[in-house]
Amino acid sequence: MKREILSFPNAPGILAAASVVGKHESEGPLGALFDLHDSTDRFGKETWEQSESEMQRISFNLALTKANLREEELNCIFAGDLMNQCTASAYGLLDFDLPYFGLYGACSTAAEGLILASSMISTGLYDKASVTASSHNCTAERQFRSPIEYGGQRTPTSQWTVTGAATFLLSAGGGDAYLTQALPGRAVDYGITDLSNMGAAMAPAAIDTLTRFFRESGMTPSRFDLILTGDLGFEGYSIVLELMKKEGYDLSENYTDCGLLIYDRTVQDVHAGGSGCGCSAVVIASYLTDLFRKGEIRDVLFLGTGALMSPLTVRQGLSIPGIAHLVRITKERMF
Amino acid sequence: MKREILSFPNAPGILAAASVVGKHESEGPLGALFDLHDSTDRFGKETWEQSESEMQRISFNLALTKANLREEELNCIFAGDLMNQCTASAYGLLDFDLPYFGLYGACSTAAEGLILASSMISTGLYDKASVTASSHNCTAERQFRSPIEYGGQRTPTSQWTVTGAATFLLSAGGGDAYLTQALPGRAVDYGITDLSNMGAAMAPAAIDTLTRFFRESGMTPSRFDLILTGDLGFEGYSIVLELMKKEGYDLSENYTDCGLLIYDRTVQDVHAGGSGCGCSAVVIASYLTDLFRKGEIRDVLFLGTGALMSPLTVRQGLSIPGIAHLVRITKERMF
Repeated sequence: MKREILSFPNAPGILAAASVVGKHESEGPLGALFDLHDSTDRFGKETWEQSESEMQRISFNLALTKANLREEELNCIFAGDLMNQCTASAYGLLDFDLPYFGLYGACSTAAEGLILASSMISTGLYDKASVTASSHNCTAERQFRSPIEYGGQRTPTSQWTVTGAATFLLSAGGGDAYLTQALPGRAVDYGITDLSNMGAAMAPAAIDTLTRFFRESGMTPSRFDLILTGDLGFEGYSIVLELMKKEGYDLSENYTDCGLLIYDRTVQDVHAGGSGCGCSAVVIASYLTDLFRKGEIRDVLFLGTGALMSPLTVRQGLSIPGIAHLVRITKERMF
Repeated sequence: MKREILSFPNAPGILAAASVVGKHESEGPLGALFDLHDSTDRFGKETWEQSESEMQRISFNLALTKANLREEELNCIFAGDLMNQCTASAYGLLDFDLPYFGLYGACSTAAEGLILASSMISTGLYDKASVTASSHNCTAERQFRSPIEYGGQRTPTSQWTVTGAATFLLSAGGGDAYLTQALPGRAVDYGITDLSNMGAAMAPAAIDTLTRFFRESGMTPSRFDLILTGDLGFEGYSIVLELMKKEGYDLSENYTDCGLLIYDRTVQDVHAGGSGCGCSAVVIASYLTDLFRKGEIRDVLFLGTGALMSPLTVRQGLSIPGIAHLVRITKERMF
């Protein structure tokens, strides 16, 4: 079997992580864990796009402050978002005079960035790097579906794009938890064409990555304190649970999804749950790092999930490929 | 001074590179060097977007064939393009069951991918990886400016988006030339707001990266057989030449731009020259690797240049940040 899992020899630590969210997210179950929220969702800016950039900028500064680092102590920035040409990142982090690697992994961007930054730090090329990802409900809705002012009815399988940005500072010197292993995802297309059912489009990619990880590593799901997908929502979560069982892997004890954690679906009217680059980014940067800091978890699989379509490819009749990048986060270094 | 240049300890070789272009490019000065062209620019597809994806797919297969490699011998794919949500790459390379890292570096994407792939190969995380980038005149014009059917008049500073895709296969085992050093670019914004003057928007970034490289390395321009920017065109090229001289670096002997090489500006009506992700990608994959193979050059600086805006940010009145990722390519390994 071909070796596909990356095992980081000198695993980078999460030195600090900061999360910035909008009103809806601050009112959800994780509200108290986020570092900053703006109840207008505007962050002082004139356009939603600039609001999203501003969230990135604030999350970056908050992370630096938490780590007591100066900008120039970082070697580089990895960043991405969902906006056309990834401008939330390019403009949001423009103030910082650091080498900039722009990423596009759709909603898997935080995980993609964590993998690439870990690769460069664990091998000694860099000492410290940041990873930033964001989404904004109002930028995503008007770009991918229709402007929120239009008030279009949402289907039961649709998800609510999270307004949020998070920055992770990774360091060769260690931190609250370590990025120990990774398995980059492959693009997987099962023929889903419904822009309002991203969970179903992304679930096969999560299953592909998870089964590859368990097969190659020989580990089983029960070994982990938590297995967490990025933004499959209730639809995708249910598909993963059911189909992984058919593959022989029982996830019923310790599997959940960031899109289910961030909102209370019974009262927040988010339908199938949260989505967007910001969804997994802010949940990992708050809830998950918090659990690690308190010592309540020690070994976690996080799968950043993404749907690699554009509104144009969907209008042209193409189906929606998904991708899922896996990162294994542990309390201690393992290799 | 902070160390910013990446020196790859076991530099990856360019095992193979393949270039696929459209009619206009095949009629230019480098026409005979490209591996494949389609004189309809359609590549057998119904939409321009799918034509661009198809170019990526063909370039990937051509590169594998040249290297006599099977797909499964690669560890991963790095790819990107200019289309919204980078779908030329996601759909173009969907056939290949390989871990996929999506990039957005605007027209600097090929260089960004070469840096990241080199980082992972030179440190032993991976053995072989591919880098693919593309642009298509008809997808870019209708997305960034107006559909070509509209026949809008072009200003003298505007550039012609190259129809082209290229794939590079990098290997720890060596190749025709080596990716020896790199200096990732920073986003630099000098306040340019003209969508038809990308050269001026990107030139300050090229100057920033070049001066940082010469300062940190202590090397001078005359050391290199060639210094090559990605797609500054005549405007950006002239700015770089003039302002680098003011900084004390004389580039007059050995500096040119892929956007100037790919077309004959005297007869091809391309105004300031070529641009787009495909521009530098196909020139490096054909002209430059050819010169290395023939032993005519031994030490080259390539700067992938990109403009990090979107049509929306320009309409919202924001200026256009540029970025320039530097890669030093040498005939032999140096470290």
